[in-house]
Amino acid sequence: MASTLTLFPLSNYTFSTKDSQPEEDPSVAARLQRLQNQYEDFGMRRTAEGILVVHEHGHPHVLMLQIANAFFKLPGDYLRPGEDDAEGLKRRLSERLDPVEGSRPGEDWEIGDCLAQWWRPNFESFMYPYIPAHVTKPKECKSFYLVQMPPRKVLCVPKNFKLLAIPLFELYDNSVRYGPQLSAIAHFLSRYNFIYA
Amino acid sequence: MASTLTLFPLSNYTFSTKDSQPEEDPSVAARLQRLQNQYEDFGMRRTAEGILVVHEHGHPHVLMLQIANAFFKLPGDYLRPGEDDAEGLKRRLSERLDPVEGSRPGEDWEIGDCLAQWWRPNFESFMYPYIPAHVTKPKECKSFYLVQMPPRKVLCVPKNFKLLAIPLFELYDNSVRYGPQLSAIAHFLSRYNFIYA
Repeated sequence: MASTLTLFPLSNYTFSTKDSQPEEDPSVAARLQRLQNQYEDFGMRRTAEGILVVHEHGHPHVLMLQIANAFFKLPGDYLRPGEDDAEGLKRRLSERLDPVEGSRPGEDWEIGDCLAQWWRPNFESFMYPYIPAHVTKPKECKSFYLVQMPPRKVLCVPKNFKLLAIPLFELYDNSVRYGPQLSAIAHFLSRYNFIYA
Repeated sequence: MASTLTLFPLSNYTFSTKDSQPEEDPSVAARLQRLQNQYEDFGMRRTAEGILVVHEHGHPHVLMLQIANAFFKLPGDYLRPGEDDAEGLKRRLSERLDPVEGSRPGEDWEIGDCLAQWWRPNFESFMYPYIPAHVTKPKECKSFYLVQMPPRKVLCVPKNFKLLAIPLFELYDNSVRYGPQLSAIAHFLSRYNFIYA
């Protein structure tokens, strides 16, 4: 039987802002070059991103960051070499979305099931939801984790980002707008039966 | 962390044939009409299908039935009203793939995680990996379950079907050939780390 997941209404959450958090890499080329440099020192990069789900009017919505009014991304980022996935993702979620003061880092982020893994076989932008045949040394593995949202929470968003709640029906079959990874989130969540609190 | 799944080589399995099993509905229209008739008597239809994974040369392959050298489908079918998902899927897998004699029905089918659910909002062919907004009474829910393959097994295929092992790289991003449900299987399996036995 499918697992259940309790969703709380978007209006339960309080949104505030904090200082901008500039991107570490100024371009895709710079990002791939840094990936290559770090691969030589530390091996495969591990990235963890969180799928935070709320509801509006009884339909699931995923919280996504938008940068420069254009690109969408999930909260989360690459982990330190040797860092535990769940601890690293809590740290990244806290950096990005917790208020600057008054909260202990990552105190109430609850990391749930691993829902997907995306593999980067080369120092290129393509990623696949499997390790392609004949690839023995992938360069990056990005994991999507379900993040179980508490009933209420303050989310504090850097000024250079927007945090948007995107409905599943908008993501599904829409890789033109959201890319192959984010548009597949409706698939990944389909294994749950939702309870709308 | 991702769960692990042990895959055995395709060559571990023995394939034989048995008598044809004609389709219950002669057309899509007939199938949807029967769905509607049964909905009036029993409510939403529940269907369970199995994702059976093996490997060839260290790449995962999914076992799929092909009908009339054209359509692909997973083994499994709709369940009886009130029937347990796992028990019903074992019964369906046994009907379709167990030898006719010498095996106790469903004896060694091991039903694992629910990987996805597809919802049919109307008596039409479209299905979605979520319940569309404003739909309160879906007409069918089709669940995909991981089926954990034993190290060795005899699979006995009705003569009007072929059983094919389709690699994940063939399914991924190939809804033109496999449709939206089957082409998404690479996504659903990406939450596992595979061990190639």
